[in-house]
Amino acid sequence: MGTPREFFAVRTVAAALAGFRPARRTAVEVVALADALRRVPGEPVLARHDLPGFARSTVDGYAVRAADTYGASEGLPGYLEFVGEVAMGAPSAVDVVPGGAVAIPTGAVLPAGADAVVMVEHTQQAMAGTVEILRPVAPGEGIVRADEDARGGTELVSAGRPLRAQDLGLLAAAGVIELAVHARPRVAILSTGDEVVDPATPALETGQVRDASTVALAALIREAGGEPVPRGIVADDRAALEAALAGALAGADVVVVSAGSSVGGRDETAAAVAALGPPGIWCHGLAIKPGKPTLLAECDGVPVIGLPGNPRSALVVFRLVGMPIVRRAGGCDVVPPEPATRARLARDLASAAGRLDVVQVRVRDGVATPLFGASALLSVLTAADGFVVVDEPATGLAAGTEVEVTLYG
Amino acid sequence: MGTPREFFAVRTVAAALAGFRPARRTAVEVVALADALRRVPGEPVLARHDLPGFARSTVDGYAVRAADTYGASEGLPGYLEFVGEVAMGAPSAVDVVPGGAVAIPTGAVLPAGADAVVMVEHTQQAMAGTVEILRPVAPGEGIVRADEDARGGTELVSAGRPLRAQDLGLLAAAGVIELAVHARPRVAILSTGDEVVDPATPALETGQVRDASTVALAALIREAGGEPVPRGIVADDRAALEAALAGALAGADVVVVSAGSSVGGRDETAAAVAALGPPGIWCHGLAIKPGKPTLLAECDGVPVIGLPGNPRSALVVFRLVGMPIVRRAGGCDVVPPEPATRARLARDLASAAGRLDVVQVRVRDGVATPLFGASALLSVLTAADGFVVVDEPATGLAAGTEVEVTLYG
Repeated sequence: MGTPREFFAVRTVAAALAGFRPARRTAVEVVALADALRRVPGEPVLARHDLPGFARSTVDGYAVRAADTYGASEGLPGYLEFVGEVAMGAPSAVDVVPGGAVAIPTGAVLPAGADAVVMVEHTQQAMAGTVEILRPVAPGEGIVRADEDARGGTELVSAGRPLRAQDLGLLAAAGVIELAVHARPRVAILSTGDEVVDPATPALETGQVRDASTVALAALIREAGGEPVPRGIVADDRAALEAALAGALAGADVVVVSAGSSVGGRDETAAAVAALGPPGIWCHGLAIKPGKPTLLAECDGVPVIGLPGNPRSALVVFRLVGMPIVRRAGGCDVVPPEPATRARLARDLASAAGRLDVVQVRVRDGVATPLFGASALLSVLTAADGFVVVDEPATGLAAGTEVEVTLYG
Repeated sequence: MGTPREFFAVRTVAAALAGFRPARRTAVEVVALADALRRVPGEPVLARHDLPGFARSTVDGYAVRAADTYGASEGLPGYLEFVGEVAMGAPSAVDVVPGGAVAIPTGAVLPAGADAVVMVEHTQQAMAGTVEILRPVAPGEGIVRADEDARGGTELVSAGRPLRAQDLGLLAAAGVIELAVHARPRVAILSTGDEVVDPATPALETGQVRDASTVALAALIREAGGEPVPRGIVADDRAALEAALAGALAGADVVVVSAGSSVGGRDETAAAVAALGPPGIWCHGLAIKPGKPTLLAECDGVPVIGLPGNPRSALVVFRLVGMPIVRRAGGCDVVPPEPATRARLARDLASAAGRLDVVQVRVRDGVATPLFGASALLSVLTAADGFVVVDEPATGLAAGTEVEVTLYG
């Protein structure tokens, strides 16, 4: 067993997020608009022409010259001549002449000569051929301009921000049916440990555990926009780990190793990383609980994340530190908002100063109840609705404190 | 043009969420665990055996009988006999006898006779064959019990809640490599309007607009766990719409119609729905802005959502009312948390009592600035970071009010 080994370069989570920023980004590829949800544009997409491209009515009513309606009221309506109507989807066959009104449905082309649309609710058709105007309109009322949704040449969506439903809608309106987005970063996952066996193992020998980390990390990688590449389970053996790591690095944009849970296993990962690339170990140990035995390194430009061996710590650290690395490798420059709620702590939380504590909680009726249990227990994570982060400077939080709970979506 | 038509059954959004609950659910299908992220189990999954299945060490240290450590301190260490060590992944070859200590790495099988593990940091090996104990441990310290992560026969994940990363991890640990989940609900999308053309149309005639709703609705359907089935663009014609609707209903779990934007177009949808199924129009008009001309109906048990013709209103309503319907059709019984933040309103917001107002906002430094513009403008949605809901009873909100902003993820 020997003497306890110390972590040689412990850093804070904030320092890791700000300081460990490998430059590697995936190349761009062209995808169909229908497949572009959450994808990250590699460059801004510009409007090729004005949108909607013609002045449109935004209400059902009458296209008019606004000046012809000034002074109209319910008591003293204005009278305009009904000169025709506009059909949907085509230019108006009739113009609006002074004193004239053209019936127009929502979304139709504003006839020449008109500069506003009076809602049908503010009109009456008492006599054939005449429209009574009960309220005046200002120029521009009831219409959108030809370039009001986008002016030709301006940016429809920006680079580096994942596309949302409405972004796809605007691109479709602009006739953009495919676009250049960053390829999904390929994230290799290595699971190590002599005790770790495939999840498909029906019956376990005493001492064996099934690999829970790979499938759970793969899920978080997908949520960060990455493509998980499971690379199997590796024995706690330097040569095997080096060979597996070299294989994983080839063709991966990020490598994640859920290291053996013992101190020895962790050291093997660090040694294998050091042996493989230019020495690029950025930290070996994070000031976080659970998850201290975390390694961040770069091997030939590929970020390598060495995670604690137990799945619960691995998932906590990967969510906080690994997902941002995957997102960045995929060209994403923004931090996506996460579901959260405010709640009052049901009990005191102890925490060491200088360390980030991640505490799993259940939330009911505005009260957050911490769930305790060994960091080896996955069931604490599955029972939790979310987690509370106790920042580095804090030495604990008193029962009743209002805290921000990040919720599992 | 005629007289303005009234909505004949306007309901509140809250009433729609609570009251419009078609019973239809998708069948279950078996999927591989690796494909089960966000899928919804059709039934609870039970542990087939205890997890981890054997008592394990949670630290690197020495397995001992706790009673042998009582009274030990740095000043007056306890002395135990070093009787061997446990390797990872297999039962211990040696037992812990009274006065004995067995070296054990994190995660290894607790040897017979031991009831606790002393962390290596709280020991010294001053003499060969002897372990100095510097702090006492209580029974159970430094270990997890054989059934501490899950007891055989208990629920690992419940039915009706989408699976998260950690749920997949626990299932893998339990050897569950496939499971029964609800099929993704197939959601047919019909776009109507004589002015609407395919997004692939390179150059528009004056009066035409490209179909922005279908691709954006498809994205929201995916985010709600559904499978979008685009059914193309239908002309504003009763017979065409009835035929298209009949086709969409066959094989769909939900049908969405983004109706023509004119009053006439909306009426056609309602008439087609009424013509097709047993009369099941639940509401024709929602007390929401934007999005009033919304139709909720059931045709032969299939929920039909008639949306306003302009894409912005359609997306606002579908997010609030349509996505819950899709989730429920897919067996999901919970309301997933959404990203949100609190911010202060930059300016007054007017709102009519009795109507839900959905106001798009930009959020910077804790200040929410409302974005205004005709409800036809998609660019208002793409410029927004999220939205504020002004509830039915409110008649407006004053500048400076702290509001909850639901953020676009």
